[in-house]
Amino acid sequence: MGKISVEALQNMILQDIDILTRTDDISVSHALGRCLAQDVYAPINVPVFTRSAVDGYAIQSRDTQLGSSDRPIRLDIVEKVRTGMVPKRQVREGEAALVTTGAMLPPGADAVALVERVSVQGDTVVLTEPVRAGENLSLLGEDIGESELVLAKGQIIRLVDVAVLSSLGIDHIPVLTRPKVAIFSSGDELVTPGNVLGPAQVYDSNAYLLEAAVKECGGEPLRLGTIGDSFREVDSLLYETAKTHRFELIVTTGGTGASLLVLEGKDIENIHDLIPGSIAKNGQLKSHGLLMTPGKPTAYGEIAGVPVFALAGWPYSTLMTFQLFVRPAIRKMAGLPPFQDPKEVPARLSRPLNTEKGIRKYFQVRLHREAHEIWAEPLLPPPPPSAARTMHQMLQGTGYFFLDGINQLHADEGEWIRVTVDDPRWP
Amino acid sequence: MGKISVEALQNMILQDIDILTRTDDISVSHALGRCLAQDVYAPINVPVFTRSAVDGYAIQSRDTQLGSSDRPIRLDIVEKVRTGMVPKRQVREGEAALVTTGAMLPPGADAVALVERVSVQGDTVVLTEPVRAGENLSLLGEDIGESELVLAKGQIIRLVDVAVLSSLGIDHIPVLTRPKVAIFSSGDELVTPGNVLGPAQVYDSNAYLLEAAVKECGGEPLRLGTIGDSFREVDSLLYETAKTHRFELIVTTGGTGASLLVLEGKDIENIHDLIPGSIAKNGQLKSHGLLMTPGKPTAYGEIAGVPVFALAGWPYSTLMTFQLFVRPAIRKMAGLPPFQDPKEVPARLSRPLNTEKGIRKYFQVRLHREAHEIWAEPLLPPPPPSAARTMHQMLQGTGYFFLDGINQLHADEGEWIRVTVDDPRWP
Repeated sequence: MGKISVEALQNMILQDIDILTRTDDISVSHALGRCLAQDVYAPINVPVFTRSAVDGYAIQSRDTQLGSSDRPIRLDIVEKVRTGMVPKRQVREGEAALVTTGAMLPPGADAVALVERVSVQGDTVVLTEPVRAGENLSLLGEDIGESELVLAKGQIIRLVDVAVLSSLGIDHIPVLTRPKVAIFSSGDELVTPGNVLGPAQVYDSNAYLLEAAVKECGGEPLRLGTIGDSFREVDSLLYETAKTHRFELIVTTGGTGASLLVLEGKDIENIHDLIPGSIAKNGQLKSHGLLMTPGKPTAYGEIAGVPVFALAGWPYSTLMTFQLFVRPAIRKMAGLPPFQDPKEVPARLSRPLNTEKGIRKYFQVRLHREAHEIWAEPLLPPPPPSAARTMHQMLQGTGYFFLDGINQLHADEGEWIRVTVDDPRWP
Repeated sequence: MGKISVEALQNMILQDIDILTRTDDISVSHALGRCLAQDVYAPINVPVFTRSAVDGYAIQSRDTQLGSSDRPIRLDIVEKVRTGMVPKRQVREGEAALVTTGAMLPPGADAVALVERVSVQGDTVVLTEPVRAGENLSLLGEDIGESELVLAKGQIIRLVDVAVLSSLGIDHIPVLTRPKVAIFSSGDELVTPGNVLGPAQVYDSNAYLLEAAVKECGGEPLRLGTIGDSFREVDSLLYETAKTHRFELIVTTGGTGASLLVLEGKDIENIHDLIPGSIAKNGQLKSHGLLMTPGKPTAYGEIAGVPVFALAGWPYSTLMTFQLFVRPAIRKMAGLPPFQDPKEVPARLSRPLNTEKGIRKYFQVRLHREAHEIWAEPLLPPPPPSAARTMHQMLQGTGYFFLDGINQLHADEGEWIRVTVDDPRWP
């Protein structure tokens, strides 16, 4: 199977992946950032009754039309209505009711005179100017009308939407479910962190990484443990997991690269790679091999209709290919816009770098300031004969950039590049 | 108490607020974005044993020093070691062991010959070139050395850190606790969403809003319901809540503005505002009144050493003052960097706007494209005699901008402004 470009695999995935139809009914207070699954219509008017917009006196406006300093109007204060109270009586001709901001307008009244514009003498309020009908009122349904469309299906719930839904008395809404993501790590040698390491064993660094990354972008991860390096075990676990249809996605790490697997006691039928081979056998392998590094052996396909992402096992490969391929899939399924990219910073490269023609190559860099300029120092693996040193680079890195292998095969020392910063400590 | 500027209140708050000392021990897979509470040292070496960096043959390098095409070196294959296996025997002079990538280097061997560079004849591997000592190995502790400082106290956990901690076998770490935030809504008329509305009642739109906003920025909210418009009730609830010291912050909405509160049956001792009055009586009122709109009546103080934020009750006031004052406090307590601001977009203003001298005034705007330009249409409340219409504007808004009242008292029609976009649908 030929290697394909990053964009080609991204497009293939986004064409395959559908937005989910399953919904969760959740509290509005937990709905921030979720995708609304149904149109929401206002169940009530807002305001739900005509209320005073100010502290003042509810009156019949026609009583005041001839009011002036020379001919003050005197109205009897018949009631005091505060917010939350139901007025006990009507405001009739010649009468007024004290109302606080937000209080229900008493029946009979059609306007409110601002408290600062009147004077009070005992049980009488004195007005020296006309008040127009409707003045200082918030009318029934003026803000949102009953059965008005408030939020449309597909809307990502914002803080302001939480406030609007609350003001309508809505406490639960249907949102698209979070895509359930099954996570497997492949490798006989792997031990889950927190357990004791046996001889020749290493800790699985990818399962927790994927769990955190899936949650961050809006999915619901479930770590299903490690898979041994055997076709029988891989086949069985992947197929059984897919078949349950309890997961919208399966993500594996490791077991993607061309490896020997020719050892005694292993039921290997061919030199095929472990996970991609199992996808091909139990479903459809759609892509294996990327024109990118790290992540060259990344594979993608489906088993029982469930998309399977087989990521390479080096932690930085896992992280970068998750961000490039799995994250957009999760976001699309959940009805969410693309994940907000970390900020980009222009910087000068401190040493020349190259990629092969056609290969998009990612480089981790450490940024530092020098004489009012920002410099990016590539964090390269030590040259052969030594190898690895990946965790160290991940700890030191401020971000990354890439040479696309098409327009850019080379970057010079001192050249300006755009670094994607993934360290919140910078700057 | 005189009104103060936005910056003055922000500075006052940040001077008051300390970073928390209480910590939670949480799973590394849940630690993304949290603040590490202790230095982390590597409990093991990474790699935890010297391993092969490639598929190949583990050998004694000195056996190969004279190897060439003319004088091929033949070594007996004595074992096949795959990843996760403990080698059963030593590699001696004249011997080789097949090793897969990541497999433990057998004792006696000091290098690995790449599988692509050798040929195999039965149980013999043939080398035609020298292999240097150490070639194709990942050495014990080469990536991270045991007891090396890996992550420093105060570090915000990134995805790469999750991978590094996992690779060290660490599954739990101590992080600063999430600040516990008590939320009250003040007003006799308020009903929690989901309940039936009685006459003259309205739904509380702020409690869910604050719950969502507190969670979003890293706090742990608890809604404690509504407080009636009575000094006795407010005093008792605020003081009792503060005294428990179960909360790092108290946030209230409503009851901050100058209101009448002169109605029968209410135990109002003075015309003081309800919440600020209670803060002053039970603790220390440090600020009441802002040179800002919305949010002019915002108050801040402490009761029993617990910071209390009394936000105005209009939902948009609540939202903006939360973002300007409460969010930075929560972030600082939790050891987190400032909340990542939403993006800013330059746009042309579609009608002139003004503020009073000294008053920072925020305007909600709706953005739209017109002839390759982005225009910002202010969403203003309808002019008196009508009032309110706040939810409608919150639904329609794409973002906001402000006139600072110092350098900018006015913006012209067509003038370029910077809009802070808070709608993920834009663009």
